[in-house]
Amino acid sequence: MAALKVSIVGASGYTGGELLRLLLGHPKVEVLQVTSERLTGKFVHKTHPNLRKRTDLKFSSAADLQKCDIVFLCLPHGSAMDRIEEFTGLADRIIDLSADFRLRNPDDYIQWYDRPHSNPAFLEKFVYGVCELHREEMKTAHYVSGAGCNATTTILGLYPLYKADVVEPHSTVVEVKVGSSEGGNSASAGSHHPERSGAVRSFMPAGHRHIAEMLQELAFGRKINIHFSATSIEMVRGVLATSHVFLKEDLQEKDIWKIYRSAYGGEPFIRIVKERDGIFRFPEPKILTGSNYCDIGFQKDERSNRLVVISALDNLMKGAAGQAVQALNIMFGFEETTGLEFPGLHPV
Amino acid sequence: MAALKVSIVGASGYTGGELLRLLLGHPKVEVLQVTSERLTGKFVHKTHPNLRKRTDLKFSSAADLQKCDIVFLCLPHGSAMDRIEEFTGLADRIIDLSADFRLRNPDDYIQWYDRPHSNPAFLEKFVYGVCELHREEMKTAHYVSGAGCNATTTILGLYPLYKADVVEPHSTVVEVKVGSSEGGNSASAGSHHPERSGAVRSFMPAGHRHIAEMLQELAFGRKINIHFSATSIEMVRGVLATSHVFLKEDLQEKDIWKIYRSAYGGEPFIRIVKERDGIFRFPEPKILTGSNYCDIGFQKDERSNRLVVISALDNLMKGAAGQAVQALNIMFGFEETTGLEFPGLHPV
Amino acid sequence: MAALKVSIVGASGYTGGELLRLLLGHPKVEVLQVTSERLTGKFVHKTHPNLRKRTDLKFSSAADLQKCDIVFLCLPHGSAMDRIEEFTGLADRIIDLSADFRLRNPDDYIQWYDRPHSNPAFLEKFVYGVCELHREEMKTAHYVSGAGCNATTTILGLYPLYKADVVEPHSTVVEVKVGSSEGGNSASAGSHHPERSGAVRSFMPAGHRHIAEMLQELAFGRKINIHFSATSIEMVRGVLATSHVFLKEDLQEKDIWKIYRSAYGGEPFIRIVKERDGIFRFPEPKILTGSNYCDIGFQKDERSNRLVVISALDNLMKGAAGQAVQALNIMFGFEETTGLEFPGLHPV
Amino acid sequence: MAALKVSIVGASGYTGGELLRLLLGHPKVEVLQVTSERLTGKFVHKTHPNLRKRTDLKFSSAADLQKCDIVFLCLPHGSAMDRIEEFTGLADRIIDLSADFRLRNPDDYIQWYDRPHSNPAFLEKFVYGVCELHREEMKTAHYVSGAGCNATTTILGLYPLYKADVVEPHSTVVEVKVGSSEGGNSASAGSHHPERSGAVRSFMPAGHRHIAEMLQELAFGRKINIHFSATSIEMVRGVLATSHVFLKEDLQEKDIWKIYRSAYGGEPFIRIVKERDGIFRFPEPKILTGSNYCDIGFQKDERSNRLVVISALDNLMKGAAGQAVQALNIMFGFEETTGLEFPGLHPV
Repeated sequence: MAALKVSIVGASGYTGGELLRLLLGHPKVEVLQVTSERLTGKFVHKTHPNLRKRTDLKFSSAADLQKCDIVFLCLPHGSAMDRIEEFTGLADRIIDLSADFRLRNPDDYIQWYDRPHSNPAFLEKFVYGVCELHREEMKTAHYVSGAGCNATTTILGLYPLYKADVVEPHSTVVEVKVGSSEGGNSASAGSHHPERSGAVRSFMPAGHRHIAEMLQELAFGRKINIHFSATSIEMVRGVLATSHVFLKEDLQEKDIWKIYRSAYGGEPFIRIVKERDGIFRFPEPKILTGSNYCDIGFQKDERSNRLVVISALDNLMKGAAGQAVQALNIMFGFEETTGLEFPGLHPV
Repeated sequence: MAALKVSIVGASGYTGGELLRLLLGHPKVEVLQVTSERLTGKFVHKTHPNLRKRTDLKFSSAADLQKCDIVFLCLPHGSAMDRIEEFTGLADRIIDLSADFRLRNPDDYIQWYDRPHSNPAFLEKFVYGVCELHREEMKTAHYVSGAGCNATTTILGLYPLYKADVVEPHSTVVEVKVGSSEGGNSASAGSHHPERSGAVRSFMPAGHRHIAEMLQELAFGRKINIHFSATSIEMVRGVLATSHVFLKEDLQEKDIWKIYRSAYGGEPFIRIVKERDGIFRFPEPKILTGSNYCDIGFQKDERSNRLVVISALDNLMKGAAGQAVQALNIMFGFEETTGLEFPGLHPV
Repeated sequence: MAALKVSIVGASGYTGGELLRLLLGHPKVEVLQVTSERLTGKFVHKTHPNLRKRTDLKFSSAADLQKCDIVFLCLPHGSAMDRIEEFTGLADRIIDLSADFRLRNPDDYIQWYDRPHSNPAFLEKFVYGVCELHREEMKTAHYVSGAGCNATTTILGLYPLYKADVVEPHSTVVEVKVGSSEGGNSASAGSHHPERSGAVRSFMPAGHRHIAEMLQELAFGRKINIHFSATSIEMVRGVLATSHVFLKEDLQEKDIWKIYRSAYGGEPFIRIVKERDGIFRFPEPKILTGSNYCDIGFQKDERSNRLVVISALDNLMKGAAGQAVQALNIMFGFEETTGLEFPGLHPV
Repeated sequence: MAALKVSIVGASGYTGGELLRLLLGHPKVEVLQVTSERLTGKFVHKTHPNLRKRTDLKFSSAADLQKCDIVFLCLPHGSAMDRIEEFTGLADRIIDLSADFRLRNPDDYIQWYDRPHSNPAFLEKFVYGVCELHREEMKTAHYVSGAGCNATTTILGLYPLYKADVVEPHSTVVEVKVGSSEGGNSASAGSHHPERSGAVRSFMPAGHRHIAEMLQELAFGRKINIHFSATSIEMVRGVLATSHVFLKEDLQEKDIWKIYRSAYGGEPFIRIVKERDGIFRFPEPKILTGSNYCDIGFQKDERSNRLVVISALDNLMKGAAGQAVQALNIMFGFEETTGLEFPGLHPV
């Protein structure tokens, strides 16, 4: 089979760069064009220095995009919805990594993004990008919307429990610990190293937009609530979600094991991590750096009905670019792990 | 007045070293002896290198302790209770920094520390060491028990709300993010730098012993529960507690302000940190390094009755040695901030 | 004696903030005004969050400065020389923390700063601010010029050897390892946390401007060369200089000890750190954070005539604000350590 | 061709684990056995948590090793030389990653390792493992000795200059900045996170054993000296060498370019990094994490004959396991980059 021709719109940022790295190493894919209006004509390895000696690609302007098999959109939130019909003309398939097509209900954009959606007709055409939840739809989908990194971490941790309906619907509390790359590649006073280094910054105690995705994916027709907070810590890549759920009935850890095994037993990128001893008893984002795994563990509080679920991933991989390549593999019938084989490092 | 003669039993550890640093700089105090059985005869500045050129003290054996005005105990948990009568003979006043006298109910030791207390008669003689809650008792106390660092952080954050009885009693969820110095100065496989660096380690998702202190101090005669988890992050000093409480009635942020001001308005070491903009909108442990402040902030979730309370301190200062010196100042009628003037650094 | 009235021009940056912290805690000093044109009217603790509850000062405009006893200038390089006569009218004594009056030879400004000095007549009125080298001149000086942080670290490490004339004059190689706060408080692409975190960045392999100060202070009438490089590492505060000098004659380590003791025996802020065992055998900047010490150690290479000298300090303290307060203490006859008592922390 | 059967002796450490990760992903290789006496019978992914779901291998005892095509030795220094004949019986080819067969002259072991070599006859049978210098010999070699990580970094940076004989032979000064994984996986007081975090530790100002390798590989029949120091910094993986060489004649940067291009033009794992602007103007170890590249840059000091050479690599990859796999590829005629395709991450 001829290599799939792919282009990336908005390839100068962290997500675009990571996607480019993965696609350059993907054996079924040829990277046709990558765009950046600001850097048109410049070598991509100047911006993404890990790609030195790997590619001689230069950034193109989006105005010069050629037809191809699939386009990845790595634009700022709000851009993709305004320009979607420009891109549907270029390729039969699109994977959008912004927030613009994640939510099915147009009203959610008003509520969570403070603006009406500019092209709501497209919302139902997009499949939400968490592969473990929407694999079957992806197989025939033309459009996939990459999920938010914090949403992916939280949803993958909680999905089996919510699907099995064993959780009190209104009392779940989630706190994610996130790294600085989540904020993108634009410098600001808050990202200045002397200020950001060693920070434990409660940047979003309430009101995080990714909550909308969690509610959409975990409700299963019920009314639920997720009490979500996000804290930045000293880390560049990585998300760890600590989710406190309250069990409706008296389940033991072995029952929880069964629920997770049943949901994720065959999943190539989910690992249940729960050891009795050793250093890495629970998921840790650092050993996931560069990998596409989402590691999930849990512990039952013996003094209450609380179950603490711990889920971790690399926000630029399973939380963005890796997830998108996994979706591509599903959409085109490739082995799902193609191009995503890097297991992560230890120590690191 | 002649300087107060103080000795420290168990001064080779991190808490003992920090206490020694503070007491050497305290204008009303003379450090008489500091003990370490392992390091007897060695200069303390070899172990605590920041004290080079500050003191020529050498470690003594506890067997050689002389009478003095007050003894600080920085022994491993379980030692102080076994040897307490040895120390009451040495000094009229004792501040114990272990867990051995924190809990009033002897049964709590069986439940949380898996062993009966070896000298329960002393439990009622000790005042629990959070100065903001027990200042009046401390003024006449002979024995004070330093509070746990995670307990102090959580209790100071939540105390005004529990005292005002505005919180649902069974649904509070707390997660502390802690640094590596909390684990003390003994190297282990888990504290080995390549493993511990950059970690986000769910070392105690449930069952942390400091919960017992929180329940004791926050109950106010009610039956309450605190769903507590502890996560180690990349940090040496510092604790930040994110506490999710659910309000019984519809309070606004200005009502919460009033509750905190009423509880802490005159407190020298509590700062309410809640800014509309800027980098440091909420408490951050890094700017508290070396200081005795506990910074507290909060944010109301507009979509629910959840209030997120954020509290931070330096675990070796306000969470241990600084708190102990503050208690000493109260016990002896000194200005409460004496020897605790260092404000913390920025940037750091 | 009435408190000394001091003002700080340019107090919104890191050096100005650190100076303000020190002066607020200095018992002989009253901080009259601190200026920032951009932040006029704003509380200083909004910019320097460690000073919350420590001061209610607001930033003033330099146009509103009142007469006072001493003015500290913390302006960008190039400003102080242009405006120096504006400030000499305000106070009888000035300590300038920029590079504008560090070099005695006006030609050096052309060679190292690529511009002629705009007020060369003032160069000879300023005393170079390394107190250990110029204490006697400072006692009667009206104007002191704070030394560069990298220059201070290197000069203090090498001064005894150059003074004793035991070093080959043209072969010394120095590499400083520096933290991110050296670059000031302005965010840039290079200071963006995901890029700067964990960096080992050769930001100035040759041509660093601080070399001019080293040559000036270490020459003692000889012609010398210093081969200097600067590397940024993962650190916020701190400088460590590794200096490789080649001995002219066959000196043993005990001879080197004598040379250092003779030069620094009575110095309050110099510590010779050279242990046979333990973790802190040589100077380490991290335990100097917030302190005014410069720690110096050395090791002779047994296979050659190389002597490796290691010197470390906190760039914002002994390398800037602390050095300036030490100079103030000398100028006004205060105890030299006044306001500079903080010993640094361990662990940290 | 049937897959190559390989075993790793001593696979519980960091180098052994990294080698295992690479070999598991190598398409021409089958990992037969990995040994650890302490962990015999345990799953390797318990020790190397990044390999969860990648392998079900368990550790074997060396006593149970079967015959195979090639054995990698990752034993502590001193073991391989004592047991070498045990391993030559198991496989026709050996790659030893310890220091035991790096030096050709047996006397060097006495001088640098303080003990005579126990099997000097084998020294001449081993090829020194820096592929760029010894590729031709490796093609027919049976035994290869992996080079030291600091030696590899320094040698690769300096080799073109020494080979071209443009460097003063006795005045080169090198300082490496290294991460904590260089010290291996055994916890110690010095590797305890509160002590090691943020350290700038002059752990080997002189006398480092890797100097022997540098002298051996860079001499080209001349008498040379390398003045070498090693400093630990806040980093887990990575080495950066700053080498100060003094040019014998007046070369310009374009001449230096030619020398490097001539030496490394066709090398798959060497990149010359020297940009006029941008953040990554010179080599940085962090973007090499997990990759097999050695990045090299340089800058001429315009005020002297000094050339500053900057070289960087991942100590566990190009400095150990990656280099060994590259050697395996050469020995067996595989494409040299096989199994070493990971380019490194950005940001990280």
